Formats: sequence, C-alpha cells, structure tokens
Amino acid sequence: MKLIGIADTTFARVDMGAAAEDELKTMGTGFKIVRYTVPGIKDLPVACKKLIVEQKCDIVMALGMPGPKDKDKNCAHEASTGIIAAQLMTDHHIIEVFVHEDEAPDAKTLDWLAKQRAREHARNAYNLLFRPDVLSRNAGKGLRQGYEDAGPIRE
Amino acid sequence: MKLIGIADTTFARVDMGAAAEDELKTMGTGFKIVRYTVPGIKDLPVACKKLIVEQKCDIVMALGMPGPKDKDKNCAHEASTGIIAAQLMTDHHIIEVFVHEDEAPDAKTLDWLAKQRAREHARNAYNLLFRPDVLSRNAGKGLRQGYEDAGPIRE
Amino acid sequence: MKLIGIADTTFARVDMGAAAEDELKTMGTGFKIVRYTVPGIKDLPVACKKLIVEQKCDIVMALGMPGPKDKDKNCAHEASTGIIAAQLMTDHHIIEVFVHEDEAPDAKTLDWLAKQRAREHARNAYNLLFRPDVLSRNAGKGLRQGYEDAGPIRE
Amino acid sequence: MKLIGIADTTFARVDMGAAAEDELKTMGTGFKIVRYTVPGIKDLPVACKKLIVEQKCDIVMALGMPGPKDKDKNCAHEASTGIIAAQLMTDHHIIEVFVHEDEAPDAKTLDWLAKQRAREHARNAYNLLFRPDVLSRNAGKGLRQGYEDAGPIRE
Amino acid sequence: MKLIGIADTTFARVDMGAAAEDELKTMGTGFKIVRYTVPGIKDLPVACKKLIVEQKCDIVMALGMPGPKDKDKNCAHEASTGIIAAQLMTDHHIIEVFVHEDEAPDAKTLDWLAKQRAREHARNAYNLLFRPDVLSRNAGKGLRQGYEDAGPIRE
Repeated sequence: MKLIGIADTTFARVDMGAAAEDELKTMGTGFKIVRYTVPGIKDLPVACKKLIVEQKCDIVMALGMPGPKDKDKNCAHEASTGIIAAQLMTDHHIIEVFVHEDEAPDAKTLDWLAKQRAREHARNAYNLLFRPDVLSRNAGKGLRQGYEDAGPIRE
Repeated sequence: MKLIGIADTTFARVDMGAAAEDELKTMGTGFKIVRYTVPGIKDLPVACKKLIVEQKCDIVMALGMPGPKDKDKNCAHEASTGIIAAQLMTDHHIIEVFVHEDEAPDAKTLDWLAKQRAREHARNAYNLLFRPDVLSRNAGKGLRQGYEDAGPIRE
Repeated sequence: MKLIGIADTTFARVDMGAAAEDELKTMGTGFKIVRYTVPGIKDLPVACKKLIVEQKCDIVMALGMPGPKDKDKNCAHEASTGIIAAQLMTDHHIIEVFVHEDEAPDAKTLDWLAKQRAREHARNAYNLLFRPDVLSRNAGKGLRQGYEDAGPIRE
Repeated sequence: MKLIGIADTTFARVDMGAAAEDELKTMGTGFKIVRYTVPGIKDLPVACKKLIVEQKCDIVMALGMPGPKDKDKNCAHEASTGIIAAQLMTDHHIIEVFVHEDEAPDAKTLDWLAKQRAREHARNAYNLLFRPDVLSRNAGKGLRQGYEDAGPIRE
Repeated sequence: MKLIGIADTTFARVDMGAAAEDELKTMGTGFKIVRYTVPGIKDLPVACKKLIVEQKCDIVMALGMPGPKDKDKNCAHEASTGIIAAQLMTDHHIIEVFVHEDEAPDAKTLDWLAKQRAREHARNAYNLLFRPDVLSRNAGKGLRQGYEDAGPIRE
C-alpha cells in the first residue's frame, strides 16, 4: 500500500485538494491519501517534507494559488525553491501545482483551471508512482496541465 | 506543555509580538510562549532555528516589517528564503508574518494591519499545533490575514 | 561499465532525450544509459538526484524546454538552482540542457536547436566522464552548444 | 571569555572593521575580537562560517560595501543569502552590515554612514551576546542603523 | 605542499586559467596547481567542490565569462549561488572570477580585463592561503580586480 500526500492551503480560493483526491481515486487502487492543510504557499515546503518524513508518504502533491501582485509572485518563487529543496533532502517527488490568480480572465475560468490542473497533475503523480512508462512514452510531447497541450513540434 | 516561539525585530515600527502573544492567550491553554527579539528580518531565520533547536519550541512565529525600498524587498526575500530553509532543516513550522510598510496608505492603518495580521496568524499557529482540523475545513476558502478574506470562488 | 542518466520532461515539445541518447552511442562504448521522464523542469532536480543516488549513475543530463513567459523563466531559474544543489549534494555532474522556447524564431529552428544542443552537451557529458583532456584543451575557446561557437578572442 | 568575529573586505572603501572594533571595546569586557579580511562580499559567507567553526567565535559581524551597479546588487544578494545559510548551518548569529555605495549622496557621507552603521550594529552584536534584554525592550521600536531611527508608530 | 585548484570553462572566450596559473607561479612556491575544465559556469560549483573534496585542494579559483544576455546573467547568478554553497559545505574558499562580456567595450579590452582580473584574484587566492596579513592590511582600501582601484575614501 502506497501513500500519496496532498498538501494545500486556506489561502487558495478553490479546493484544489478535493479535485486532486477525486482524480486520484479514478486512476486505480493500491494507495491511501493523506491530506494536510496549511495557511499559505510558503508553509507548503515543510508541510510536504513532514508528509514524507513523518507520515511516510511515497509522493506528495503541493497545491497552491499565488495572488496576482509582485509580492505574491515572490512568495511563489520562495515556495517553489523550498519545494525543490524538500525533494532533494528526501529523494522523493513533490508535484507542485500552482495556479496564479492572473492566469485566468475571470473567476469561473480560474475555478475550472485550478481543478483541471490539479486533476492532470494527480495523474502525473499517480504515474510517477505506479506507471513511469506512461511518462516515458510522452517525453517531448509538449504536454500541459490545465489549458490545452502545446503538442510536439512536427519535424 | 507545548512551546510557541515568537521572534520579532527592533526594526519593525509596531510591536507585532505583543499582539501575537495576546491573541495566543485567548486561544486556549497548554502552551508557553518564548520571545526572542533580533535587530532585523535577516536575523530572523537563525533566531527561529535557535528557538526550535535550543529552546525546543514546537512552532515559531517570525514577525517582521520590511521597508518600502527595493533594498528592503530584497531583504524580505532573503529572510523568507532562510525561514523556509530553517523549517526544512528542523521539520517544524515557522509562520512568517511580514507586513510591508507600503501595504498600508498611512501609519495608523499600518499599525492596525500589522497587529491584525499578527493576531490572525497567531490563530493559524495555534491551529497547526492543536487544531489542524480547523485548517483542513478551510482548505481553498480564500482566507487572508490582515485585510478582508478573498473568499472561495463560487462554482 | 559506467552509467549515464538522461532525465527529460513531457512538457518539452522536442524529444531531446532521444537526440542525446543517439549522440552518446556515437561517442564510444563502456557505458549504459538510464532514462527517466518527469512532467516538467521543476521535477528534474530530484529526478537527477534519484538517478545518481538510487540508480548509481556516474553523470546525468537534465533536458528541458522552458516556455517563453516570465512564469516559465522563473521555473527555469528554480530548476537550475535545484540542479546545482543536487550536484553539490552528490559530488556528481549534472549537465543541464535547457532550450528556451524564445531562443528560436520558429518551430522548425527550435526543433533543430533543441536536438543540436542536446547532442553537443551529450559530447560534453561523455568527455567529462571518459575524456576530460578534451575539455581541458578547449578551455577559453568560446564553445557554444546549439548555435555556432563564439570562438576565442584573438590577442 | 567570548569571541566576536569581524569579517570585512578589501573591496570596501571604508575601514568598517576598525569602527566596529572600536565600538565593541566601549561596550564592556568579557570578549576578544578575531579579525578576518577577504577580497569581496561574496567571500564573506565562508569567512564567517570559518570564524564560527574553526575559530570558535560566538557571534560574527560581516561588514561589506556593495557597489552601485546591478551587478553589485546581485553580488550583495548572493552574499546575503550565503550569510543566512551560514547562520542556519551553525546556529550562530552573523550580523550583516552592508552599506550600499548609492545610499549616500557623497563620499564624505558614505564614510560617515559606513562607520556609524558598523558601530550601531556592533552594539546589536554585543547585546545579542551579553544583553538580549536590551533588544527585547526595543521590539517594534523602529530602530535603524546609520541614518536616524524611524521610530515606533504611535497608536 | 598546498594544492590550488583552478576550474574554468570551454564557454569563456579567454584562457583565464592560464593567466591565473602564470600569476600564481610568480607569487611564490609551496603549492601545486590542479586544473579542471568544464563546459559552462553552471558546471563550476560542483567542479570546485570536487577539487576540494576529491582532489584535496586547499583553495580553488572559479573562472568564468558570462555572456551579455539576461539568460546569461541568470546563469551567472545561479553559478555564484552554487559557488557560495560549495564553500559553506566544505569550509574552503573558492575565489570567483567572473568577467561579464559586457564589462568591456571591445574584444581586445575584454581579453585584457579577463586576464588581468584572473591575475589579481590569483594574488588574492595566494594571500588567503599563505599571507592573510596582506589582506588584513588592505581592509577597506577600495581594491578592485581588473579595472583600477576605487581606493579608500579620505576622511
């Protein structure tokens, strides 16, 4: 039995964790989900590390929604740097799923985008854990999470 | 008995630590508070780590008030990066409460904002330690500390 | 028998890994290649570290194609910082091969550039492992990977 | 007997170390000073760590004077990040005293500012080591080093 | 017998390593030089660490020539951050000698500048290892490497 951690925030305006959890359950069996909610994205790096070290998660998803201001962009950068450091300290993947508030033209689209990206990265997390061959087959295919795929360049 | 560390600075123009301490005392019992004051925000990362490693704090609040200049923004970024690193080295949460001087239109509002944000994050610190279920119930709810909540996007 | 790791992404729009693998095979023998595909460039640092620590690779190539937006540039910076950290934690080289989407005027050139840079860095990886003297002889020669060499300044 | 390290540079245009040392001697007794001069600010992080680890200093001051160009600002950022990392690796304070060349309108003021800031931070270093209560009493008081204090916001 | 490492790149357009080696030999005896050439500046941090950890170098010079584009400036920043991290992990100095291509108005001056800066920092490396008193005597003297010294501010 594998453990998949989902860390999310009270700052985000969409329940991305519920979308990720729902998608994971459609992917297969053989895993349990551990949820952990923190205030904001800067609290995510240690939350993810605690899920790996203390809760023994095999892989973690870090879900967050940075605001549109410069200050928020800085927070996202600091959080991302910490999430990468947490991975290097544990040799475990942490799939970062950040949706910037200014990535969508209106609230309805933002809601859709956040859930869609969480779902598509949930599949990535599942595949990294159980089906790495699915990722290998898609190397260089221009895949995107949320909006449509860019696709591979045709030679 | 749990220990909650509060690290703050002589640079800040508001006694955010007193506000945080006052709020924590309204939240419940079962903890003691350890205060530690340093000159500026760049001294906070190691102060927080010392509170965890040497004083055995279970969680720490890092309170600071970066100035409005580019140089100050850089300091805040460096401090935040260090605070995240300190968390990853100790597997303990450090709740960063920074109030930028240019977040408020006048000194009176800045004073209010700094204390209000310190209070609201004091509740987050308390909940992370004693009531993680309160945070879980608020995942994706668009909560903010200081100014009013953004709220969740309605589907 | 040496092991050369190749980590790449499903985000990239070109199969840079295949180009690198093909080029390596023209360089000589005495090595095996281990492939590892992850979703995006921010997943590369831990993927490279896992190739070194868990798969016992002697050197790794990290192949990625950051998008043209500011957000993508930030991702590339975070990934690069993590790739350098992974090297310092393992004392192993990880040859980063990033091709920014806006480095080429059109898709066809981007396709060529990505493969060409992957091939030229595959030679660097091979030489670091088996023929460090080739690199030493080219110190200060203004070599570039992809577009033409800048060449040395003539005194 | 405590040890206070002072790391400075040949790049700086003012002997900030002498000012710091002079000020420390007016503060009290019970400590010795260890000086260490390096070429530039990017050499300060490891110099400070060596003062702590090899020379057994209890606290260190890192004195530098970044130039006015973008390149210099980047150097200062990299040095500051390293100084924070050195603190986290040793659980010791390193008081950073940087004076940017463009903080003063003319050379004479810059000379005054560099020495004044070094002196005021020397007091901070002394107080962190011997009189932490002095810092606690000044939490949130808007203290500045060099130019005049901002002071606390009056409620 | 001390060991001085010199790490350089094939990307640089000037053989800065040869200039550094030549200058070191004029400084005195009691040391051997270990050369190590890598493709680009982002490969320098681990190269320097390997020189210290595996080759047992007592000090290392990291020589590089970042290009003039924003992308190149980012690479330089990432490399510098890594070089500082490598120093902190080993408690050894690594003297970074970077010459940005846009620091000189023409190729001839760039060639001169790169070699001159490498030579002057070679003296710094030698002095850090054998004659720290030379650096101490020059604290706050406004020394520069390459172009002329800024000099100390006269009181």
